[in-house]
Amino acid sequence: MAAFHPLVASRVRLATPLLPAAAPAAAAAGVSFHRRRFSAIVAAATAPAATGFDFNSYMGERAVAVNSALDAAVPAGEPPAALHDAMRYALLAGGKRVRPALCLAACVMVHTMSLVHDDLPCMDDDDLRRGKATCHVVYGEPIAVLAGDALLALAFEHMASVDSYPPDVDPAKHTARVVRAIGELARCIGSEGLVAGQVVDLEMTGSTETVPLDRLEYIHLHKTAALLEASVVIGAIIGGGSEEQIERLRKYARSIGLLFQVVDDILDVTKSSEELGKTAGKDLASDKTTYPKLLGLEKSREFAEKLLSDAKEQLADFDEEKAAPLLYLANYIAYRQN
Amino acid sequence: MAAFHPLVASRVRLATPLLPAAAPAAAAAGVSFHRRRFSAIVAAATAPAATGFDFNSYMGERAVAVNSALDAAVPAGEPPAALHDAMRYALLAGGKRVRPALCLAACVMVHTMSLVHDDLPCMDDDDLRRGKATCHVVYGEPIAVLAGDALLALAFEHMASVDSYPPDVDPAKHTARVVRAIGELARCIGSEGLVAGQVVDLEMTGSTETVPLDRLEYIHLHKTAALLEASVVIGAIIGGGSEEQIERLRKYARSIGLLFQVVDDILDVTKSSEELGKTAGKDLASDKTTYPKLLGLEKSREFAEKLLSDAKEQLADFDEEKAAPLLYLANYIAYRQN
Repeated sequence: MAAFHPLVASRVRLATPLLPAAAPAAAAAGVSFHRRRFSAIVAAATAPAATGFDFNSYMGERAVAVNSALDAAVPAGEPPAALHDAMRYALLAGGKRVRPALCLAACVMVHTMSLVHDDLPCMDDDDLRRGKATCHVVYGEPIAVLAGDALLALAFEHMASVDSYPPDVDPAKHTARVVRAIGELARCIGSEGLVAGQVVDLEMTGSTETVPLDRLEYIHLHKTAALLEASVVIGAIIGGGSEEQIERLRKYARSIGLLFQVVDDILDVTKSSEELGKTAGKDLASDKTTYPKLLGLEKSREFAEKLLSDAKEQLADFDEEKAAPLLYLANYIAYRQN
Repeated sequence: MAAFHPLVASRVRLATPLLPAAAPAAAAAGVSFHRRRFSAIVAAATAPAATGFDFNSYMGERAVAVNSALDAAVPAGEPPAALHDAMRYALLAGGKRVRPALCLAACVMVHTMSLVHDDLPCMDDDDLRRGKATCHVVYGEPIAVLAGDALLALAFEHMASVDSYPPDVDPAKHTARVVRAIGELARCIGSEGLVAGQVVDLEMTGSTETVPLDRLEYIHLHKTAALLEASVVIGAIIGGGSEEQIERLRKYARSIGLLFQVVDDILDVTKSSEELGKTAGKDLASDKTTYPKLLGLEKSREFAEKLLSDAKEQLADFDEEKAAPLLYLANYIAYRQN
């Protein structure tokens, strides 16, 4: 199977000045960007000349590597065929691949598992994901539940596999770091992460009361930010970061995780299904509480800017060249169009 | 919450001669045991005087330790309350606790996850488990799916936690062993373990053709034996067993895993729901392929004896005292009444 390059194919080109590309698309979709404020941020952050860093190439290379790892991780055609087909279908469906380019294929497996289970009829009952029929629509509910379980297990198998790590890692320090990283990944899934977020989200969806802002933030910090946090922190742990660096990157990741969701909420009310590759306006139709609903579009965008600025602040003490991918990633999440 | 002692409360008393206790119960249920052959095996295997080993006390102590670890692992009343309640409900429901007494609370979490997901309406659609309403009946389907996911993640969090291991383990060798053990646990869940078994089981359940013997064995080696194998092998890895010892114990575990299922099939057609604590005769009612159906009761019992003998053979070269729990466990699985 040919590797998939989601970011190479993306319409958003962050290595070139962002606004000229993003603004026309936004205008076409009826979005009124705060050009002055955004352009100031962009000018400060997306200056490729300063570091010589090419975000598009970087993400493209990472996407190829991660997709190749994912492709190899789940054998095609091996029995039970339906299970492996379903796992590959969900795993290799594309998507933004923000997390994997950042760190590990294991995080993609966990993320895919959470999407497959959240899409189930008994949960969010969604039949379209990334522009394709969801896993249970294609393979049936039982296989979708089981494919999710298998992907979750595979993520940990992958983490525990010595082949998953760069050959230049010090073997004396290696295994202790791997154990700590596995603990981080595990914690971000269960009752302190993805699952907790989905539980509270489901409670809120079934309720007629308006979700308070702190509850909404709880949902997003758990459903979205937790896995991004794990991805970034795992990278820092495996790479041998200091405790202070790990905690700074944790804060950075929580900010861009929440940012991701605020932008998602904004896109849901300002873009078409075709542009998003998933059903647009679904939050509004299902009367789901979102940032635009609670704060309005204007305040939601201000909040997004605050989160972007918080994230960048955490990167200030890092080596400029090494932090460049994280800086560009924050901008990518802030200014993405789908 | 008070710790639960499933084996202390059990009607089967293995430390005292087995047949006097087991045979009346079997006779009451209309089961005709092959007394001569079984008593010969029992005489050879359940001789407490030889090692001074008390299986009942051993299992009781292990059950207390494991239940205490499980109780502590999932906080009661912490938000989201429904999720934690569902996790505790499934996890602390009792059950035979064969695997945990053998090794790790993490394996109980994985086992419980697989039961919760297998019981779902879209899978085996079972509303009774261990004599109690199943998780989705009490908490609803979405929470049951999510509680399973959270338990799976918690198992790995537990494995990666340094608090989960005995304090006398050599720290220099410790983390490498933990990483290997995590790989074993992960592998036994996914497309080489529990999930693969359930997928093939579901395919067979929906089919009108009779399941061939090799397919039936595939299902049980994956659905039942794989996790037992992981439990035993993880214990051997963490305990610093040699490669040869690990592989012998792997074979032992596969034999008793299959044995467990053959006995389960026999019990389903020879015991009442009350005695089993779950719906009896369900295999027959659902036209499920079982060993008694394929081989008849007589040949199924002979196969069980063969597996028991194979398992014991693997233990021959181990220190008698150290292998005593495994020897008694094999007998327990062979002669259990529910």
